[in-house]
Amino acid sequence: MCELLAMSANVPTDIVFSFTGLIERGGNTGPHVDGWGIAFYEGKGNRIFKDVSPSSASHIAQVIKTYPIKSEAVISHIRQANRGGNSLENTHPFNRVLWGRNWCYAHNGQLSDYVEVIAVKRIFPVGETDSELAFCWILEQVLNKFGETEPDDYLAVYRYIATLADEVRRLGLFNMIISDGLHLMSFCGNNLCYITRRAPFGKATLKDTDVTIDFQKETTPNDIVTVIATRPLTKNEEWHILKPGDWKLFKLGELVATGETVTVDVNL
Amino acid sequence: MCELLAMSANVPTDIVFSFTGLIERGGNTGPHVDGWGIAFYEGKGNRIFKDVSPSSASHIAQVIKTYPIKSEAVISHIRQANRGGNSLENTHPFNRVLWGRNWCYAHNGQLSDYVEVIAVKRIFPVGETDSELAFCWILEQVLNKFGETEPDDYLAVYRYIATLADEVRRLGLFNMIISDGLHLMSFCGNNLCYITRRAPFGKATLKDTDVTIDFQKETTPNDIVTVIATRPLTKNEEWHILKPGDWKLFKLGELVATGETVTVDVNL
Repeated sequence: MCELLAMSANVPTDIVFSFTGLIERGGNTGPHVDGWGIAFYEGKGNRIFKDVSPSSASHIAQVIKTYPIKSEAVISHIRQANRGGNSLENTHPFNRVLWGRNWCYAHNGQLSDYVEVIAVKRIFPVGETDSELAFCWILEQVLNKFGETEPDDYLAVYRYIATLADEVRRLGLFNMIISDGLHLMSFCGNNLCYITRRAPFGKATLKDTDVTIDFQKETTPNDIVTVIATRPLTKNEEWHILKPGDWKLFKLGELVATGETVTVDVNL
Repeated sequence: MCELLAMSANVPTDIVFSFTGLIERGGNTGPHVDGWGIAFYEGKGNRIFKDVSPSSASHIAQVIKTYPIKSEAVISHIRQANRGGNSLENTHPFNRVLWGRNWCYAHNGQLSDYVEVIAVKRIFPVGETDSELAFCWILEQVLNKFGETEPDDYLAVYRYIATLADEVRRLGLFNMIISDGLHLMSFCGNNLCYITRRAPFGKATLKDTDVTIDFQKETTPNDIVTVIATRPLTKNEEWHILKPGDWKLFKLGELVATGETVTVDVNL
């Protein structure tokens, strides 16, 4: 499996603290040694750092850990490969441009018997993972439904993505983060949680390594920052645990929509 | 204007030497201070490092300079903005996935009266540059001509891209590098040159900073490495200077096709 980390914030914010905890799970406190990646949105642009080395030993990961990039939306992933070898094209997050916006996505889980169910005709994957194919399939369905030009109603787009994610969930484990840079959605297959930090800010201590931060020193009173992760990253804060089928849509750090999907058990 | 740098090689090769020369032109020996970017292909995957800081002062550029990433195809660009502000979405190289391959592109030059001529309906730019719009327009024409699934004949694709590039060249200055990871094409508007290094390897000295390399110590006898740049990067080697309208297609370091296009002067 893998682990996910994401952030949505109303001011450009660095994710060094959370990323420091996550990358420990890529070889030290966790078994996710088959590469890692992180996408930072800065306005409509984004940049994605990836490596096939374990995050705990990656030179580029160390650079990210010590070089704060401020961003309003971040998606990160550490990989324990199941479908597809350990190569750059199989490393998350994946990115495609749709409607002149960068869509970025990462998946934690594993699908089975999926090749015919989520076949694509227009948006093809580069690598061999079930994850990237599911991303391509979701975007292709969105493109087919909403057309080639950008729609006004992004909430309708994300509600549709939730139904598509629920279809993918019938094929196996599917925890997903997807973003167009402005909105960021989390869809829970089995493990996903989030925390929204706002004033009054307190102190937080990482679970995976001995680091404590005083957010009050790092923020202004108007900052709103949501962090999403597979498992809670800190040990002295209350994280919201999502249930299977739950989805949450964030915009500039705030929860703007939420929903539950109910999946028919294919084994019934 | 801007400066371009690219590489095509038959073995994964690092571009640290050439990149070291290029980034000096981003603020030290040249005026290209509006960001920079570099794309490394590793197999079908690629990773793109970008920054809006001048390359000569960029922390990430220093990392790339000291951390050799071995790649068969590289595209790099340092920017002096003309169309579009200094932001990440306006920073080259640009990337789109077509036929399950990463297509990567960078442009040096400036277009005029282009908005209606290279209008797009399917593949939209994220930023505001003439460069990214031209890339989207070229890919859209390719998609319209060759269809949604990958064609067998890549040479035909690149020959078509050359005719498209020539159409864009009627709108202004258009030096371009484009690659699908396996092939890499250079199209000359006014300034572009290349060198192919193979055994017996010699020594080379950069023009822009006091660095000399002995390629014999860094290579094996079978290595073939082509480097393309806006202006020669070394002062003791013979670079091939392209003429306006010339294009060259490289694959694994070797020149595999070449052509000339003749543009009608729109002012006549």
